[in-house]
Amino acid sequence: MKRIFLYALVLTSSLSVCAQSSSQYEGTIKSLYDLELTQGQSYSMLEYLATRIGARLSGSPGAAAAVEWSRHTMEDFVDSVWLQPVMVPHWVRGQQEIARVINSKKQGTLELSVCALGGAVGTGPSGVTAGIVEVKNFEELRQLGTRVQGKIVFFNRAFDATRINTFSAYMGAVDQRAAGPSEAAKYGAVGAIVRSMGSGIEAYPHTGGLRYAPNIPKIPAVAISTKDAELLSRLLKEEKDLQLYLETHCVTLDDAPSFNVIGEIKGSTHPDEIIVVSGHLDSWDLGQGAHDDGAGCVQAIEVLRLFKVLGYKPKRTIRAVMYMNEENGLRGGTEYAKQAEKAQALKGGKKQKHIAAMESDRGGFTPRGFTMSAPENVKAKIRSWKPWLEPYGLTDFDQEGGGADIGPLANLNVPLIGYLPDSQRYFSYHHTVEDTFDKVNKRELELGAAAMAALTYLIDQMGLE
Amino acid sequence: MKRIFLYALVLTSSLSVCAQSSSQYEGTIKSLYDLELTQGQSYSMLEYLATRIGARLSGSPGAAAAVEWSRHTMEDFVDSVWLQPVMVPHWVRGQQEIARVINSKKQGTLELSVCALGGAVGTGPSGVTAGIVEVKNFEELRQLGTRVQGKIVFFNRAFDATRINTFSAYMGAVDQRAAGPSEAAKYGAVGAIVRSMGSGIEAYPHTGGLRYAPNIPKIPAVAISTKDAELLSRLLKEEKDLQLYLETHCVTLDDAPSFNVIGEIKGSTHPDEIIVVSGHLDSWDLGQGAHDDGAGCVQAIEVLRLFKVLGYKPKRTIRAVMYMNEENGLRGGTEYAKQAEKAQALKGGKKQKHIAAMESDRGGFTPRGFTMSAPENVKAKIRSWKPWLEPYGLTDFDQEGGGADIGPLANLNVPLIGYLPDSQRYFSYHHTVEDTFDKVNKRELELGAAAMAALTYLIDQMGLE
Repeated sequence: MKRIFLYALVLTSSLSVCAQSSSQYEGTIKSLYDLELTQGQSYSMLEYLATRIGARLSGSPGAAAAVEWSRHTMEDFVDSVWLQPVMVPHWVRGQQEIARVINSKKQGTLELSVCALGGAVGTGPSGVTAGIVEVKNFEELRQLGTRVQGKIVFFNRAFDATRINTFSAYMGAVDQRAAGPSEAAKYGAVGAIVRSMGSGIEAYPHTGGLRYAPNIPKIPAVAISTKDAELLSRLLKEEKDLQLYLETHCVTLDDAPSFNVIGEIKGSTHPDEIIVVSGHLDSWDLGQGAHDDGAGCVQAIEVLRLFKVLGYKPKRTIRAVMYMNEENGLRGGTEYAKQAEKAQALKGGKKQKHIAAMESDRGGFTPRGFTMSAPENVKAKIRSWKPWLEPYGLTDFDQEGGGADIGPLANLNVPLIGYLPDSQRYFSYHHTVEDTFDKVNKRELELGAAAMAALTYLIDQMGLE
Repeated sequence: MKRIFLYALVLTSSLSVCAQSSSQYEGTIKSLYDLELTQGQSYSMLEYLATRIGARLSGSPGAAAAVEWSRHTMEDFVDSVWLQPVMVPHWVRGQQEIARVINSKKQGTLELSVCALGGAVGTGPSGVTAGIVEVKNFEELRQLGTRVQGKIVFFNRAFDATRINTFSAYMGAVDQRAAGPSEAAKYGAVGAIVRSMGSGIEAYPHTGGLRYAPNIPKIPAVAISTKDAELLSRLLKEEKDLQLYLETHCVTLDDAPSFNVIGEIKGSTHPDEIIVVSGHLDSWDLGQGAHDDGAGCVQAIEVLRLFKVLGYKPKRTIRAVMYMNEENGLRGGTEYAKQAEKAQALKGGKKQKHIAAMESDRGGFTPRGFTMSAPENVKAKIRSWKPWLEPYGLTDFDQEGGGADIGPLANLNVPLIGYLPDSQRYFSYHHTVEDTFDKVNKRELELGAAAMAALTYLIDQMGLE
């Protein structure tokens, strides 16, 4: 009887603690949202980053300004900020590209809307003139073989519109941009035109990185707007002998010094357990890098600011990391993981352990949930928190994934988490002149910042073990 | 033994039927989505309606053109189209409104961005000049009482930004617009300025309907942009004796003849059971009525078109209804319900029964789910279909609600369903010059049309009993 009574007492008391915690978590999460939605600064920070600094490709003056801006911005509400040096690729677009169909009987001289792919070699001022061969995939290219010799290969496989998640459509097409130029060069092509990685039919091209394969000639490569890809394809059906004049002026300079920017609030009880919230500071040179990834940067910074303003003292150390060079090298993410490994391996001193890394790099759109790349027990623990997050539109915790920059931390077995906003509009802006501040909705951006703060808070409170 | 065997046989066979149906439902829903996302016409229909016809307030030439357009558009793929006559209010804005602070020492002459509220009386060419009294709610107004006599009352309660669903914030503020003018007139006010029903701080005002109370003087009433509401409020704190010159030219003409437009595919096995999919054809006179509610109209029409193109022959009769006059009278929805009641009560002939009515009137944004106003067993049945709908981002089936135009069908106990897109951007555009076609994302619009088609299909297959 006594034991039963004792058991009942323990049970009651633990239930009561549990109810208390649950109500505390719910309350703090609501406070974070209320604060962000009424006095949030993510939108005004993004306005500065996107419209005052603007494009910030690795090695550019814009990137240097963004480093300085984020260091300065975080100083007001973190315990410390520091710069983590990293050498980055330094590619420069140079003057406006030209892609001109010069011998169409139907269209006369036809200017196509193109932009060089990041990392591509240029044609130089004398340009390249050649016939055009359209293919939809590498298998078609292989079958053509050396028949593309001396030609410009036109990769024209569109996004699969039936994939509900546009990132899935992107993954199904991006091989053309990343590997297409070298695949074409294998068979003697002298240039590559790649259909832009866009969801719709648009007048402007999407840039993005390519990867030249080793020991294969590097050929000039451009993205063409989806609208002009459709036009060119139609024209090629009628006039197979079209000649294209391509002129690009991009060059790769020596690697340049740059930095990851790291701001930190020290944990009160587990200072050596680190939770990373992050975005990447660099952007492509077109547009303003508003959604990609200005949004992620200001959301990550905002997590720390919200904690500070709310007076929340985290148990663990919370770091906002602004990675450099996601777009064309991932040098920042790689360097960060290298340094994290060193800190984890320290003998005799304080060993640091990253217990979670979160990145926002899918744009500042309305929330859907979080992706995870983590052991099943960690995923299950995070999913058990859904009742606190679903009222804020965070319902999808089922997709695999983290983020490009935090990817290298997987080698240290760090659970990776990606903020998952709605994907429908992302590939209308991604890597284009249209990725500008006016395309970001204030509330959508803020809901993302608050979502990241809420999840960071729960991880801080309960860990992920 | 025999009985057990028989039971097992029945079970196996019913499971097999069930599995077959499930796979059939899944397959048809995927076909509807694939068709819409690759060959959908909702976006091009909306382009025409929004950019060629544009604004279409009840009684306007635009509304008449929209009636003709939807009749003509549906003719190609329905069994029949007809116009249902309805008399509608005919309010006309007239020339551009003026709201001018004329005696500010701080600002000099200050033009405020305003627009008359729908249904308001005008000041006429001589305008109204009066002092301004700011209030946040009707209780403050009541306490001021006759101290507002001869003044213009400025209702300035903002949306509650902490409400995650912006429709909830709208509901918490819209009493100022709907009832504010008459509340102010009760105490002798000579005009009303209402803070725009917008989520953010914007330079343009949001119009919308007011309701004058009976036996109270009708006073002129305008909406002021949220930006200028903030400015005016700040100024009033420093200069309490500000004088405002208000000039509006709106008038209410005689009721005008108009129509609901109804397109129908006859049911093959239950022709007298009707499922309505709908939107409202009228819009405010500012902007193009793209999200409100051009989107809903083309989505409803698209449901019928998708069925036709896919070769799906519904068991029940599917009707696309374009209601007239949602914005300032609800005459179309009221008339439709009246006729539906007559058809249901017919003795001796064919009785028609509406088994469900669905409306899309929350904009053409990315899908979240469906609201329902229906008996619990009906809600439970629809929720049991979630596994087929969740892969398309439709996860929220928990909110109460239908739609304004289908509301009157509640008297006939018709289950009401509202298409529920994401709400974050809606109140940036609602009832403003910014509600234009370029604010609509093609995929988001299409996903809404496909969602409505999918749910209509499931209701058609399985009923709601």
